Amino acid sequence: MGLTLTEKIIKNHLIKGNMTKGASVAIKIDQTLIQDATGTMAMLELEATGVRCVKTELSVAYVDHNMIQEDFKNPDDHRFLQDMAAKYGLVFSRPGNGICHHVHLERFAVPGKTLLGSDSHTPTAGGIGMLAIGAGGLDVALAMAGMPFTLIMPKIVKVHLTGKLSPFVSAKDVILEVLRRISVKGGVGKVLEYCGPGVKSLSVSERATITNMGAETGATTSIFQSDDITREWLRAQGRERYWVPLYPDDDAVYDEEIDIDLSLLEPMVAKPFLPDNVVPVKEVAGTRVDQVMFGSCTNSSLRDILTIAHMLKGRRIHPNVDVGLSPGSRQILLQAGAEGAIEDLIAAGVRILEASCGACVGMGFAPPTDGVSVRTINRNFYGRCGHASGKVYLASPEVAAAACITGVITDPRGICIEPYHFEMPSNLIIDEGMFIAPSPEPERVTVRRGPNIKPLPEMEPMSNKLDGQVLIKVGDDITTDHIMPAGAKFLPLRSNIPVIAEHVFEVVDPDFSKRAKELKGGFIVAGMNYGQGSSREHAALAPRYLGVKAVIAKSFARIHLANLVNFGILPLIFANIDDYEKIDRDDRLVFDIGQLNVESQAVLRNLTKNMEIPVICPLCGDDLDVVKAGGKLNWIKLITSTN
Amino acid sequence: MGLTLTEKIIKNHLIKGNMTKGASVAIKIDQTLIQDATGTMAMLELEATGVRCVKTELSVAYVDHNMIQEDFKNPDDHRFLQDMAAKYGLVFSRPGNGICHHVHLERFAVPGKTLLGSDSHTPTAGGIGMLAIGAGGLDVALAMAGMPFTLIMPKIVKVHLTGKLSPFVSAKDVILEVLRRISVKGGVGKVLEYCGPGVKSLSVSERATITNMGAETGATTSIFQSDDITREWLRAQGRERYWVPLYPDDDAVYDEEIDIDLSLLEPMVAKPFLPDNVVPVKEVAGTRVDQVMFGSCTNSSLRDILTIAHMLKGRRIHPNVDVGLSPGSRQILLQAGAEGAIEDLIAAGVRILEASCGACVGMGFAPPTDGVSVRTINRNFYGRCGHASGKVYLASPEVAAAACITGVITDPRGICIEPYHFEMPSNLIIDEGMFIAPSPEPERVTVRRGPNIKPLPEMEPMSNKLDGQVLIKVGDDITTDHIMPAGAKFLPLRSNIPVIAEHVFEVVDPDFSKRAKELKGGFIVAGMNYGQGSSREHAALAPRYLGVKAVIAKSFARIHLANLVNFGILPLIFANIDDYEKIDRDDRLVFDIGQLNVESQAVLRNLTKNMEIPVICPLCGDDLDVVKAGGKLNWIKLITSTN
Repeated sequence: MGLTLTEKIIKNHLIKGNMTKGASVAIKIDQTLIQDATGTMAMLELEATGVRCVKTELSVAYVDHNMIQEDFKNPDDHRFLQDMAAKYGLVFSRPGNGICHHVHLERFAVPGKTLLGSDSHTPTAGGIGMLAIGAGGLDVALAMAGMPFTLIMPKIVKVHLTGKLSPFVSAKDVILEVLRRISVKGGVGKVLEYCGPGVKSLSVSERATITNMGAETGATTSIFQSDDITREWLRAQGRERYWVPLYPDDDAVYDEEIDIDLSLLEPMVAKPFLPDNVVPVKEVAGTRVDQVMFGSCTNSSLRDILTIAHMLKGRRIHPNVDVGLSPGSRQILLQAGAEGAIEDLIAAGVRILEASCGACVGMGFAPPTDGVSVRTINRNFYGRCGHASGKVYLASPEVAAAACITGVITDPRGICIEPYHFEMPSNLIIDEGMFIAPSPEPERVTVRRGPNIKPLPEMEPMSNKLDGQVLIKVGDDITTDHIMPAGAKFLPLRSNIPVIAEHVFEVVDPDFSKRAKELKGGFIVAGMNYGQGSSREHAALAPRYLGVKAVIAKSFARIHLANLVNFGILPLIFANIDDYEKIDRDDRLVFDIGQLNVESQAVLRNLTKNMEIPVICPLCGDDLDVVKAGGKLNWIKLITSTN
Repeated sequence: MGLTLTEKIIKNHLIKGNMTKGASVAIKIDQTLIQDATGTMAMLELEATGVRCVKTELSVAYVDHNMIQEDFKNPDDHRFLQDMAAKYGLVFSRPGNGICHHVHLERFAVPGKTLLGSDSHTPTAGGIGMLAIGAGGLDVALAMAGMPFTLIMPKIVKVHLTGKLSPFVSAKDVILEVLRRISVKGGVGKVLEYCGPGVKSLSVSERATITNMGAETGATTSIFQSDDITREWLRAQGRERYWVPLYPDDDAVYDEEIDIDLSLLEPMVAKPFLPDNVVPVKEVAGTRVDQVMFGSCTNSSLRDILTIAHMLKGRRIHPNVDVGLSPGSRQILLQAGAEGAIEDLIAAGVRILEASCGACVGMGFAPPTDGVSVRTINRNFYGRCGHASGKVYLASPEVAAAACITGVITDPRGICIEPYHFEMPSNLIIDEGMFIAPSPEPERVTVRRGPNIKPLPEMEPMSNKLDGQVLIKVGDDITTDHIMPAGAKFLPLRSNIPVIAEHVFEVVDPDFSKRAKELKGGFIVAGMNYGQGSSREHAALAPRYLGVKAVIAKSFARIHLANLVNFGILPLIFANIDDYEKIDRDDRLVFDIGQLNVESQAVLRNLTKNMEIPVICPLCGDDLDVVKAGGKLNWIKLITSTN
């Protein structure tokens, strides 16, 4: 039986388990990446393992999220990462060098290899045929320490592309179409493999846009074949030697199939507040726009910037629209500058922001009160733009550029501009000067820790009986931005769990943290797809610090589920979805850990309502032991000491 | 008797008074500028006057300070300013267009005219021979409403320049030398007029650096002649028609003289935490540097950026130094880009930040804990960089660029680089597309006010007897950054007095606001030069909101003194400086307003210590009536209704 792309790479990296769908497999991780919003914690965790040097082929620490530096916290974190990278054998990518995913794709990603990153958009490197997976910081730390990464063998979805995109329709519209069809939950437990004749019409940058934002479906990852276009990309990057051909076997067997005729797609937007709230542009055309933001790991490639510059060249942004652009990387900025695009953008009135994640993660450039912001980014979650009244529409660079000109949401096909045809330059500006290599004398490196960088809190093992109140009850599609908000106010606290824990659930329930502390912890009750969005382990670690014992949900997002396990919070799934109605906030629940066998049904008692509620524990492998031990670091110490 | 430059311009604009030194004169204001940190309040004040349209020749509202947009507050302020500008007849300079002083110098400043700006660095336009004065927002609002500006006829100091600057010594070193000689108090009540044969060797940009940072001496303003170099600047800006020759008369009489031989100057820095803490670079050479910031209204001209790019071209910033650059304006960014300088800077590893005030006003790019930051800006006040442990050294672009290369404070003459000779391009990139003209239908403009934009608080007239406790006792050289901090945390609150008032004196006494409220106001006791620094009227308005009745100081900075008057706080000066020792915090003071005659001595009673303390009220003209009325807006209503 033939293999899919995913199966081929997993097979080559298999350390434990076999590739049975739904079973646990452990794979070797070749490369890792961390960034500054998740990376300080990951480095503290790596330090806690006692390992002296990373054991991967390559590990990189990027600074791209917390670039505003309102006070000492962010620059202290950058310095800490730089010192830790020097000491532990990571390459350090300096602030200004660009967004991790763009830079990694340019300089390090290799077809057929595995990449684990403490950022949910790590699948970007799937655009080049790499198996690139987002994970919590602790899982990445353990991969750096040489341990395999365990995942549930995913279902493989064939996304069969035919045809060719029409002018002003682009890669963003492909992934918006996927989201429209399968929703923000539709990819959970799956890998999206793009194939078919339409693939050949997409550049690596366009493929990367698609695999990047595949994260919004909840998929484990997304991947494209490694073909001549991949080879050409690597050649332009001076890295052709890393090219290997990689295709699925002709007789590969897929679990599901999605067919997309690229030529039938039209410009689309995702309306607030979810990335799957997708409609054709024409349905919302004419909506007044206050702000346009070009950027993020999804849509700030050279291809995107040249396209935007082409559309805005010789034109002027509308007086009512404030426009900002964050280039994806320093290479992209330099290259776009050399091609005159940056000059054209500035001339049109665009504010050139730093090569960073920027406004996508709420790091500046918030829209005004009730403002409509059209953004080329990947997430329009409630509050993520800096405040609750901002309304973010996700769109392609083409749709966003059209809004700059007209001041309203506009189908770019309706304005008289020649379509732009992007040709990948055969020689790119390659300059690795903003990477710092690990120290040749790591033992001599002193790590500087700012006052906001606090050690990981100690975690007690789980008690046999979980007993407490329901601290909060939330609905479907709760994102990590609801649980542990990002943005310029909160991101600088990422290295300090006791302080950031004061802000858990702040956007939906400002008293949550206080209540959780007073009640010495308790339970969280949630709907479908709990924890979608970012890989941030703080969305598990901070609730754990507040004493959260278990989350009972209709379903979980993949990375968040792993993060709950890693920090010793028990995930439980309603056996009957309707039982969600049988629990209210403040109810007292009791759960006996002893009854748990992996994946078997158990009973949760609601003492307040005097009801018994059947639940399923979705854990497999060692995961239950990890939770009982109080988290993965405890568990590792346990098995290391008993072995 | 011949006239100085200052006297000539004042004479041409004189509305009331005569030019007797120390007497009050009222002058016509031709142009005004406001920016977004002081401008929302100024526009609320303009609105309160009831005037429908500005009555100046030109008034401009710039957005350059609060560009980070962490939440809705800053973008709401920008939108409010845009709407108000459209309605009241101001030109609006959009975010991204650059720092007010650079843009004004480029596009609007005219030799021989008067400019009043709600920013202390308004004297920048003195580089082109304009009489440009910084003032509180209310004074600027009243000037927009067509009222004359009242000032004390200043002493005129002749700064006689001879010789020519040596390589790697630049305009910043001239003003640092002035500060070294006369201190941050030395310019109070004076205008610094630069003349002598050395002037001819300085470009308009260099002159503007000097007049700009003359603000740090406390001077009313600084000014250069309008000569062929000025004409050449205006020609390059396509504005030669605005040139007029302007020189002091040969027999002009100056009150003081400072002689500076430019050829004897060497590279200097101002050490933390005052701009007059000036030493030659060689005294601190070798100090490890964590960060370099190029920018601000002082040193981010085309001349400066080309100089920096020349020094860094083909080099790489030191691994320990994080480097950022904020271009002064969009014109400068475009021009430097066209000349390849931006590319060279990016290639060297410099982070290109927005054309804005940026880190100079604590808006991002803070250094790490205990970090040393070498900056080309104008102020190194305690805490201004974003936190109290940051140590800012003020330096020229040349000295800062040298630190980028070596990682330590370095005399640029000691590294092997050819000196750069700046030639002003004969044709600059002129693009006024980021200005928005006032609306042709102002009555149809609806002004959008975000939820953080609150009306001006009502102010009661002063009671006849001031009675209360001393809320705080501070030392010499207290800056507006001590009184009402700037930075990314506080600047967004500028449109909301009740909220920003909670942070008065926060950096020196976090309980001040709470105490002031509990005690229903009281007194402030201070040393020399109280209120130096920014023009921000919030440093008077917010204490007034908290009930502060009077400030007793050894001396006051000019703009702050005017702001106290404008908001009805009584300024008093110790008749005997040593009496400062006779008052402590919490002492109960009583002051009888009835005894006050302008500039005569009065008695302040310290009930706690049972002492009588002679004080002088430094007010003249109508100012005492203004204070008694509870501030200038009240007073204007009073005289308008009684007339």
